[in-house]
Amino acid sequence: MSKYKVTVAYDGSSYYGWQSQKDVVNIQDTIEKALSVIHKEPVRIIASGRTDRNVHAYGQVFHFETTLFLTAQQWIKAMNSNLPYDIRILDVQPVNEDFHARYDVIKKRYDYYLNSGEYNLFERNYVTQLGYTLDIDSMKEATGIFIGTHDFSSFCGNSFEETPNQVRTIEKLEIVEENNKIHFIFEGDGFLRYMVRMIVGTLIEVGKGKLSLQEVKDILEAKSKDVCRFKAPAEGLYLTEVYYK
Amino acid sequence: MSKYKVTVAYDGSSYYGWQSQKDVVNIQDTIEKALSVIHKEPVRIIASGRTDRNVHAYGQVFHFETTLFLTAQQWIKAMNSNLPYDIRILDVQPVNEDFHARYDVIKKRYDYYLNSGEYNLFERNYVTQLGYTLDIDSMKEATGIFIGTHDFSSFCGNSFEETPNQVRTIEKLEIVEENNKIHFIFEGDGFLRYMVRMIVGTLIEVGKGKLSLQEVKDILEAKSKDVCRFKAPAEGLYLTEVYYK
Repeated sequence: MSKYKVTVAYDGSSYYGWQSQKDVVNIQDTIEKALSVIHKEPVRIIASGRTDRNVHAYGQVFHFETTLFLTAQQWIKAMNSNLPYDIRILDVQPVNEDFHARYDVIKKRYDYYLNSGEYNLFERNYVTQLGYTLDIDSMKEATGIFIGTHDFSSFCGNSFEETPNQVRTIEKLEIVEENNKIHFIFEGDGFLRYMVRMIVGTLIEVGKGKLSLQEVKDILEAKSKDVCRFKAPAEGLYLTEVYYK
Repeated sequence: MSKYKVTVAYDGSSYYGWQSQKDVVNIQDTIEKALSVIHKEPVRIIASGRTDRNVHAYGQVFHFETTLFLTAQQWIKAMNSNLPYDIRILDVQPVNEDFHARYDVIKKRYDYYLNSGEYNLFERNYVTQLGYTLDIDSMKEATGIFIGTHDFSSFCGNSFEETPNQVRTIEKLEIVEENNKIHFIFEGDGFLRYMVRMIVGTLIEVGKGKLSLQEVKDILEAKSKDVCRFKAPAEGLYLTEVYYK
């Protein structure tokens, strides 16, 4: 048995997210089906984590075990020829048997893209089309509230039963603006369900002048499921990179 | 009865082209349905010309007649609220009763986009993903063969029965390259079916070193339906602007 670490990019527009589910098209099942065709038997894969419906990935990572002997280039070719064009295998690396795509993650990067200029229909699945401008300076100021180690319960769609520990560390949260394109870069040790989208949604409210920095602090400190009513749309979100030891 | 000239952008990815057809989703029927909802009776529209399946538009033009009294802004809002997000009305202008969106065209602009760099899955419906590099200088040299007034029968998908006169004038054919993005700009008095895609396909063969300039000239001068076997894919093509007197 050998184990491989695989990096995959996908356009999430046509999928009900990463997670294997009955009756809906999802990315995990689509990749497992491709690997099962190659192996002529069922193959299971384990990812660094889930992505939600319509969320994209430049660099999701999963691992799988196999008794087949193929080179990295052969694996890439075999998988891509069995996958639709909106899922592309970018890299395959042999790893030790103790490697685990989910437990060994030390850092993740997410990117989020907003267009505050004119509606662009060719971008509608890839960049959130906002339709109004934002005060970027106050948004940048508010990013400092999130950086560091915090209990992000207020910015997590999961209950405490589903995710008992909702403390995470955001190492980087940057906003870059150019020509009405607003680009958010998040790096941290892990991100809770909806965390990036709820933070972006909250920062949009700051940019609209609807929330003060103190109100953002209050939401974070409330550690409550009832205080943050903001969640930016899925289509602007990308899982960009997963870092391992 | 008043007449309006309408400019519309659409993402052609989900449509079987502009033309009204039974049993398949097309752009004309989708817009006519939206106008029919507004008018509570069937409304017909006439476009500057057809676009094929998966071809996009930044600025297709059509006209329609109506007895309703709405301002331009009200028309835009009424239509867009009855259209899917991949079809967007950009402009509505009242015109004289003798205006005709097809017969009054004096010039059209088409743009075509190629990516000769790494496959980009987020662009796959909007930029043709070529996967190899081209000799741009020889392609630019070959553009001169097409500029001017020619019988473009060799670069037309329609028979002489369908389109008796296959003489057209290309006023501009430019190629701009930056970072593996190859951008073609076409302007002319009219374009035959598949003409832009067949010319781009031929220029790609020149860029691959598979066709000499003399061979391109021979294809043009053959005025035959059997000599040009090249047609670039639809997804890279945009009807950008239609010009009227």
